[in-house]
Amino acid sequence: MAQRWKITVEFNGSPFLGWQRQDHGPSVQGCLEEAVRRFAQETVTVHAAGRTDSGVHATGMVASFDLEKPVSAEKVRDALNYHLKPNPIAVLKAEAMEGDFHARFTCIGRAYLYRITNRRAPLALDAGRSWLVSHPLDADAMHAAAQRLVGRHDFTSFRASLCQAASPVKTLAELSATRVGEEIHIVARARSFLHHQVRNMVGTLKMVGEGRWTADDVQAALEARNRSAAGQTAPADGLYFTRAFYPGDEFPEPISDGPNTPSSTSG
Amino acid sequence: MAQRWKITVEFNGSPFLGWQRQDHGPSVQGCLEEAVRRFAQETVTVHAAGRTDSGVHATGMVASFDLEKPVSAEKVRDALNYHLKPNPIAVLKAEAMEGDFHARFTCIGRAYLYRITNRRAPLALDAGRSWLVSHPLDADAMHAAAQRLVGRHDFTSFRASLCQAASPVKTLAELSATRVGEEIHIVARARSFLHHQVRNMVGTLKMVGEGRWTADDVQAALEARNRSAAGQTAPADGLYFTRAFYPGDEFPEPISDGPNTPSSTSG
Repeated sequence: MAQRWKITVEFNGSPFLGWQRQDHGPSVQGCLEEAVRRFAQETVTVHAAGRTDSGVHATGMVASFDLEKPVSAEKVRDALNYHLKPNPIAVLKAEAMEGDFHARFTCIGRAYLYRITNRRAPLALDAGRSWLVSHPLDADAMHAAAQRLVGRHDFTSFRASLCQAASPVKTLAELSATRVGEEIHIVARARSFLHHQVRNMVGTLKMVGEGRWTADDVQAALEARNRSAAGQTAPADGLYFTRAFYPGDEFPEPISDGPNTPSSTSG
Repeated sequence: MAQRWKITVEFNGSPFLGWQRQDHGPSVQGCLEEAVRRFAQETVTVHAAGRTDSGVHATGMVASFDLEKPVSAEKVRDALNYHLKPNPIAVLKAEAMEGDFHARFTCIGRAYLYRITNRRAPLALDAGRSWLVSHPLDADAMHAAAQRLVGRHDFTSFRASLCQAASPVKTLAELSATRVGEEIHIVARARSFLHHQVRNMVGTLKMVGEGRWTADDVQAALEARNRSAAGQTAPADGLYFTRAFYPGDEFPEPISDGPNTPSSTSG
């Protein structure tokens, strides 16, 4: 009988069209499926907790697939890493799971990190790995405004036009902005996100950081339920899928629908 | 009259033969001098606090040169960055200095960071930017052993055969090893270093981290004054020139020649 495997994966998204297998170029899923084929001579579908866009990175993507071949967890990890070379994809961990585990369908939460480098000079070491913003940003103001988005809301204003989700209502469990030296780190956590939701929220918070928007403006953008009411889509470069949560993992929800959101959760 | 300029530079060393201008390939110095020529139509020599090897990175290299063209500091920084594209070199800051400032000759201290990633999986995001060591390392043991090297010693055992320094005696002001998640960060600080000294010290401390060597073995290697007595040269990938110190900067020296070094400083 086949064994279900869970793998935790790091990748540099720059050379890929994104997670999902594509006919016209390299994808993370395609590379992983090819590595499984070379290692085990089995044709599998590798399912991910999140189907990241082109250029988006991961430090802790979770994926799952089945293998007929009987092997140890160490062998799965090391053999996949061997066959993944020279692609910038690394399997950090492999774990044998019960057959009801599914990286996407049993996932109860996702976390992303968005890195902004807030300086005038271009990025030499972090080119393609952070969003360079030249104007000085007020991280505290960004953090305060971000709290207007925490909770259960209709996030139509932060949803890509191509988004295929059935409903625009999501519960944002965390959205925090913290200054770390010349960087600003934005952490977003939710059961699931709409397409481009994190990057659209970051693009909006950037306007707050620049002093062009207030927290009230962010709330008004949310309540407008109209994509054109919110800020730009932040570039893929700064976005990292950091963690997927499964039953048994602690995934703290916000205590309420978030402060200062009296009217925005009815949609 | 010409103006002396000090610039602080970040670069990714991977595509370069090193700092120093070479006829047979790209160098950081060559790129900076070419950027000055394009911006100011002046042919200058750009002097650095440290002439880093091929593949070595910098987050805070300091360099100096003269310009006849009267310009503001902001213009020097922005114009150099414009003309440096698409090379992974960024001028973080430009400062007008007195004529007696010289990035190399007035430098009173240099600091390096060496990054080790201590895990089994290959590096996807940090390929070329950290040293991957698979065997578990004991950072505390590495730190303790490193203290045997702090102080004024004959560092012949840690000196590249091609090193051109007049004397192998150097005063190591700091050598610390700290675990930061799955990484080990080694910080080295001295007025100056021998060629490959930091990388040779790191290669030796790695043996301590693996449990193959003790702190006494490190001290014996130092006292042997023989390159073959110490460990391997750690790869360039993990090394970052982080800071140059000049008169007026605080540069704490070790209180003594370091603990447990009764006989090793007479050379």
